Amino acid sequence: MKKILMIVLDGLGDRPNDALNGRTALQAAYRPNLNRLARKGLNGLMAPINEGIRVGSDTSHLSLLGFNPLEVYTGRGPFEAMGLGMDVKSGDVAFRANFSTRDSSQIITDRRAGRIANGTDKLAQSLNMEIDGVEFFVQEGVEHRAALVVRGEGLSDKVTDSDPHSTGLKANRVEATSKEGEFTASIINRFLEKARTILDEHEVNKERVKKGLPPANELLIRWPGTAPMLGNFSEKFGMKGACVVGIPMIAGICNLVGMEVVKYKGATGRVDTDYYGKVGKAIQSLEDHDFVLLNIKATDIAGHDGDPELKRDVIEKIDHAFGQLLNITDDAVIAITGDHSTPCSTKDHSGDPVPVLFITDGIRTDNVEFYDEVSAACGALRITSNDIMPYLMQLSDRSEKYGA
Amino acid sequence: MKKILMIVLDGLGDRPNDALNGRTALQAAYRPNLNRLARKGLNGLMAPINEGIRVGSDTSHLSLLGFNPLEVYTGRGPFEAMGLGMDVKSGDVAFRANFSTRDSSQIITDRRAGRIANGTDKLAQSLNMEIDGVEFFVQEGVEHRAALVVRGEGLSDKVTDSDPHSTGLKANRVEATSKEGEFTASIINRFLEKARTILDEHEVNKERVKKGLPPANELLIRWPGTAPMLGNFSEKFGMKGACVVGIPMIAGICNLVGMEVVKYKGATGRVDTDYYGKVGKAIQSLEDHDFVLLNIKATDIAGHDGDPELKRDVIEKIDHAFGQLLNITDDAVIAITGDHSTPCSTKDHSGDPVPVLFITDGIRTDNVEFYDEVSAACGALRITSNDIMPYLMQLSDRSEKYGA
Repeated sequence: MKKILMIVLDGLGDRPNDALNGRTALQAAYRPNLNRLARKGLNGLMAPINEGIRVGSDTSHLSLLGFNPLEVYTGRGPFEAMGLGMDVKSGDVAFRANFSTRDSSQIITDRRAGRIANGTDKLAQSLNMEIDGVEFFVQEGVEHRAALVVRGEGLSDKVTDSDPHSTGLKANRVEATSKEGEFTASIINRFLEKARTILDEHEVNKERVKKGLPPANELLIRWPGTAPMLGNFSEKFGMKGACVVGIPMIAGICNLVGMEVVKYKGATGRVDTDYYGKVGKAIQSLEDHDFVLLNIKATDIAGHDGDPELKRDVIEKIDHAFGQLLNITDDAVIAITGDHSTPCSTKDHSGDPVPVLFITDGIRTDNVEFYDEVSAACGALRITSNDIMPYLMQLSDRSEKYGA
Repeated sequence: MKKILMIVLDGLGDRPNDALNGRTALQAAYRPNLNRLARKGLNGLMAPINEGIRVGSDTSHLSLLGFNPLEVYTGRGPFEAMGLGMDVKSGDVAFRANFSTRDSSQIITDRRAGRIANGTDKLAQSLNMEIDGVEFFVQEGVEHRAALVVRGEGLSDKVTDSDPHSTGLKANRVEATSKEGEFTASIINRFLEKARTILDEHEVNKERVKKGLPPANELLIRWPGTAPMLGNFSEKFGMKGACVVGIPMIAGICNLVGMEVVKYKGATGRVDTDYYGKVGKAIQSLEDHDFVLLNIKATDIAGHDGDPELKRDVIEKIDHAFGQLLNITDDAVIAITGDHSTPCSTKDHSGDPVPVLFITDGIRTDNVEFYDEVSAACGALRITSNDIMPYLMQLSDRSEKYGA
């Protein structure tokens, strides 16, 4: 049996860029190591979840790790909360939240409280409370952004948003969308009522009003979801798993399935990450784990920024770090792919497939000579992200035979 | 957001033809515009519904339009009726029918009434009736062919054929195959009884007997199906849809999902259709619609005729008309594909995949240089017809993101 290293270059896929003479960032990058690996490996295209689907990083990573989001995914809330570094447990109900401004007649006048820059940490902290055994946790994000995690017995995500999704309206009462959501709706409405009083009287808001700034006196919540009961990665696959990631949402998913989240100081989740050290840390983590997920976020960031030169430069740094992979193909099966495409031309996730490459000593090969979106089309593989774990399991000699 | 033009060249796929030196009709055709589009676009092979399935035009178009026939299709009847230009509504139960000959001892002696050439319009008209609030509509087709549409409350397609599928037998009583079909079976048997009397006494049949021709005095029905409740295309996709088609069955499907059926005088659904004008009409229809389906039937007709030279010539005329597409790729996403293969060598639908090509400015490309079945195999895409709508939605920037 071999070890498995799954490398996800976030938002890797691209479309042609004028600034790169009509090439994708991958095509334009100097990438001798990726090309060397491609020539020794099995290549192709992978559709995240399914053809043409514009996936998020949460649904896509669930699929890559062998948990089909079409079966387990209930909504963005818990993954947004994980993205802020919150501890989310199976069964928690979570929401994305906004600090917003409510006037004296209860009308929402600004859904982002003037894009409040400071003090949301204190506001969030003031809202952590327990009501009748149900715990409420609020965590601030960038500017007005926040998340709410609700933990307790008998909770359900079958409730509506309080967010009216428009100014000039009052915040909605949270309503149950089915019978099982009734308790949750009622306890959340009690929480939101208490939150209004706390926020109205909070010193951060008194300061804001004094300065003529809109107070952050209403927490609008949306996208409810129950953190899914995924079970345990190591039980499901018989492998001790770990991840080396720079962004909290993916760490949260790994944590949810019981994988070890390996700390690495140089992993920032930004373009200034320590690429070489992070790849090295992932390889080192294989020593005491059977499976390691390495996510590098920088490619996605460059895509969202619409900066093809940055995306190309980031890939060149990654390629340099990948020199370390050439020495481990005897003991490990490596997958190199993306979780979705983030074309610089659209600055958002697209439904285009991403290159996928499996490599280990003795693997069957194909005629692909370069690691990029166009060359991959001549490879052997045309798979979805749901196929990755079964493929890695059989390549690492860890699969049960199906049949006689 | 861009507009979407879906072009379906009916029965496009082919197999090698001796008359074309072992080439398919597509390979043999002079097709500079298709090849130009292929070089600028994303290519591959599409399996209609699924690999190796020998699909009909009805099931395939349902799938192409985003309605999975494995979930919604109940039988050929309603689509055969649409194919004769009948107005079929969701919930109607419809049958393919034959005018046939019944002798004095009630035995069917000719299932096609001597391939009756004239008078079936009058016979069909005489059978339109209402029984206890249930309406019966009969429409003649070519020779002995016809269709029956039954409309009313409480109908079901859980009934058997009256057609014994063989001469020398009596017409069957229609029986319920489950409890929900009992009312339908009973009312249809009453209709068929009345139809026998009407047809026996009809002047068209009296004339035929006088001339020594077999009378068309029994309507044999088969392939019951309920016209599916598909819902509305524009609600499902958030797009105002239209079709430019020459054949009634596809117009009927589009009508069933609430798309506008654009009239174009030159669209005949035959090989003498006005190719250039029809493509132009489809492009013009994009002005006041978000989505336009263009079906060109001529390729399928040439395939059924087993005439590879005709199929090649038809493709050359289509290619000429496609010069108009080169100017709209900035504002529109275009798909060019077939609904299935109709090889000239087999003269019927086959389960071979068809080429598919997506094109719009800024799309990721591949190494395909020619638009044909063999060249397409080197393209990036290996999809099914169920993937077409998701793919077009994401390319036109109309998809919701699935996840965070």
